Amino acid sequence: MTGEFTALPDIEPARLEIIKTQSPRPPPPASNLVFGHTFTDHMLTVPWSARTGWDTPKILPYGPLSLPPSSSILHYAQTVFEGMKAYRDENGKVTLFRPDMNMKRMNTSAQRVALPTFNGDALLYLIKELIRLDKHWIPQQTGYSLYVRPTMIATEAAIGIHPPADALLFVICSPVGPYYPRGFQPVGLYGTTEYVRAAPGGTGAYKLGANYAPGVVAQKMAAKLGYEQNLWLYGPEHNLTEVGTMNLFVVFKTDDGSLELVTPPLDGMILPGVTRDSVLALAKDHASGKYKISGLGDKLVVSERPVTMKEVKDASQSGSLVELFGTGTAAVISPVNRIGYLGEDVNIPTGPDGMGPVSKPIWQELVGRQMGTIPSDWSVLVTE
Amino acid sequence: MTGEFTALPDIEPARLEIIKTQSPRPPPPASNLVFGHTFTDHMLTVPWSARTGWDTPKILPYGPLSLPPSSSILHYAQTVFEGMKAYRDENGKVTLFRPDMNMKRMNTSAQRVALPTFNGDALLYLIKELIRLDKHWIPQQTGYSLYVRPTMIATEAAIGIHPPADALLFVICSPVGPYYPRGFQPVGLYGTTEYVRAAPGGTGAYKLGANYAPGVVAQKMAAKLGYEQNLWLYGPEHNLTEVGTMNLFVVFKTDDGSLELVTPPLDGMILPGVTRDSVLALAKDHASGKYKISGLGDKLVVSERPVTMKEVKDASQSGSLVELFGTGTAAVISPVNRIGYLGEDVNIPTGPDGMGPVSKPIWQELVGRQMGTIPSDWSVLVTE
Repeated sequence: MTGEFTALPDIEPARLEIIKTQSPRPPPPASNLVFGHTFTDHMLTVPWSARTGWDTPKILPYGPLSLPPSSSILHYAQTVFEGMKAYRDENGKVTLFRPDMNMKRMNTSAQRVALPTFNGDALLYLIKELIRLDKHWIPQQTGYSLYVRPTMIATEAAIGIHPPADALLFVICSPVGPYYPRGFQPVGLYGTTEYVRAAPGGTGAYKLGANYAPGVVAQKMAAKLGYEQNLWLYGPEHNLTEVGTMNLFVVFKTDDGSLELVTPPLDGMILPGVTRDSVLALAKDHASGKYKISGLGDKLVVSERPVTMKEVKDASQSGSLVELFGTGTAAVISPVNRIGYLGEDVNIPTGPDGMGPVSKPIWQELVGRQMGTIPSDWSVLVTE
Repeated sequence: MTGEFTALPDIEPARLEIIKTQSPRPPPPASNLVFGHTFTDHMLTVPWSARTGWDTPKILPYGPLSLPPSSSILHYAQTVFEGMKAYRDENGKVTLFRPDMNMKRMNTSAQRVALPTFNGDALLYLIKELIRLDKHWIPQQTGYSLYVRPTMIATEAAIGIHPPADALLFVICSPVGPYYPRGFQPVGLYGTTEYVRAAPGGTGAYKLGANYAPGVVAQKMAAKLGYEQNLWLYGPEHNLTEVGTMNLFVVFKTDDGSLELVTPPLDGMILPGVTRDSVLALAKDHASGKYKISGLGDKLVVSERPVTMKEVKDASQSGSLVELFGTGTAAVISPVNRIGYLGEDVNIPTGPDGMGPVSKPIWQELVGRQMGTIPSDWSVLVTE
């Protein structure tokens, strides 16, 4: 993946230097956690320069970065990031969920904004070292985890627009609670027709900071109108693309009594989510009979195809709409109960405990694999 | 412009604190300057928080910012910026060019990414203070100036996507030389069909960092193919929208012998450039007879309308294409001599000294007003 930087040093785990904090903090009680506000004692940094390649990786006490005001990230938004979770079970065993997918995507994102690429296995090795050092920060309660945030920014101290000569990769970790502390709460979405999240030839398929800043006003508008999230629509047919910062799935009942699980295809405008990929893989294996998921009906069809608001609205009216949900690392699965669309609400069925007949068994399977209660290749050991 | 933040303190120039550097540096020889690499002795900072509004403005020694690694700018790219130039004449008089336009646009940009707005006059007052303090850094030679870069970033120390609770507005200054030190050099453009700069419902009309990071790969591709810049095309007709980071003008000869000066309309995808606006205003005043520009022909029509590659290509072949140029604060006017489009080059006429019959007289008028040799309201006094 190093491409044109091949001749220069890649990230080298053997060079890792660890400087431990002199003032370790006690992790706060798990019940006090607010998503993304608390960080562990240490962070990982790996600087890069176009002239000398990837420099010494360091695990350091968590603390501020010193950036010249001319740093290109501050002006031209060259930043890419990832979000992944580490889980700790009652025996202290720590695992990550499909971290190879995040390493791969971070490289793809970096290339899109002319940031340097790197050996994903090497970075993953370093991330595991960081997690091991701060593993006592991972709450052990069900639904809790350590949110791991790898980020890469352009740090060249010059205001010109070109591939940056300097960059910094850093990883910080935040202990987080369950997205739904009081059980699943379906959310209402505002179907956004005022703004777009992505367009053909744009950057929707990459995890760039630049995709997020413009989305805040759409969320703000949704909140003002009484909806929890916004639904990104695209094109003259108002194709459903993503939910806030999540991928999206819809379930329809078909004429022959089957259930069709639909998600928009990776057409360049959709983020290739790890949870999206996992839901699809589980559902496809179930549909093909390769691996049956307990509680999920036999007649399941899995489609990656465009879905429009007209189709969803018609299905809602005719009774063939079964459920609609978002997927992402933070919430895993987020059921939806209504969509505010062009002045009226389209109602979405939800099950008695929030989730529907497809999302619930898939969620159980997925969370079991994430927590390690259901053994799978997707769970990667950090420490026993 | 303060909108929902009305009740909280706005930027208050009376609260300005100035801490001068203890180690002033000698400005480098003007001939050594590389765009955006050298910064003056001081910078301006104004912090903001959602709870307490705009805080004490400070002029401080130029130096690094200390940012928590969780700062939202580093993850979600909430940054807006401006670019403006201060000129110093042989008598030491310093002026800015239409800075009110930049203050207004910075507020419009901030709103688009849920950053706070502010009193533009107040910020301009502070910027003038900063420039006065570092005015000896402005080279006096013709074509040289001080590039002033106001920037606002989200600094909230939490990784959640929402309107930021904290922000920092800062202004840095960089002495710069003429864009074309050896006279005008027309550039070749690569017509980009692989990427888009903006889309309807997107952010093309705002000066956001998020618009720039994704453009670097298009520039990189253009350079690889032997072109100096890329030309942003949009839609099935390949409408010409912008040139790299500049606005764009085309001049056609019409059947009745008039010249038509065309630029794409402000349809939400085009940055409302200060130079674009100035070129349009000058050309319109000339066309209407309100203010005649020396050397510019009488039969001039000024249009803000879409222009497609087919129109440009046909005009190139029929001989009715007169010239094509980019406009921006850095280069002022940048003539183009060819466009690489779908595998072939479309040739663009250029005058003997690079510029054409419309751009040259307009450039002379514009630069005269910027440098203060032609008196106008557009030139705003910083210090005598």
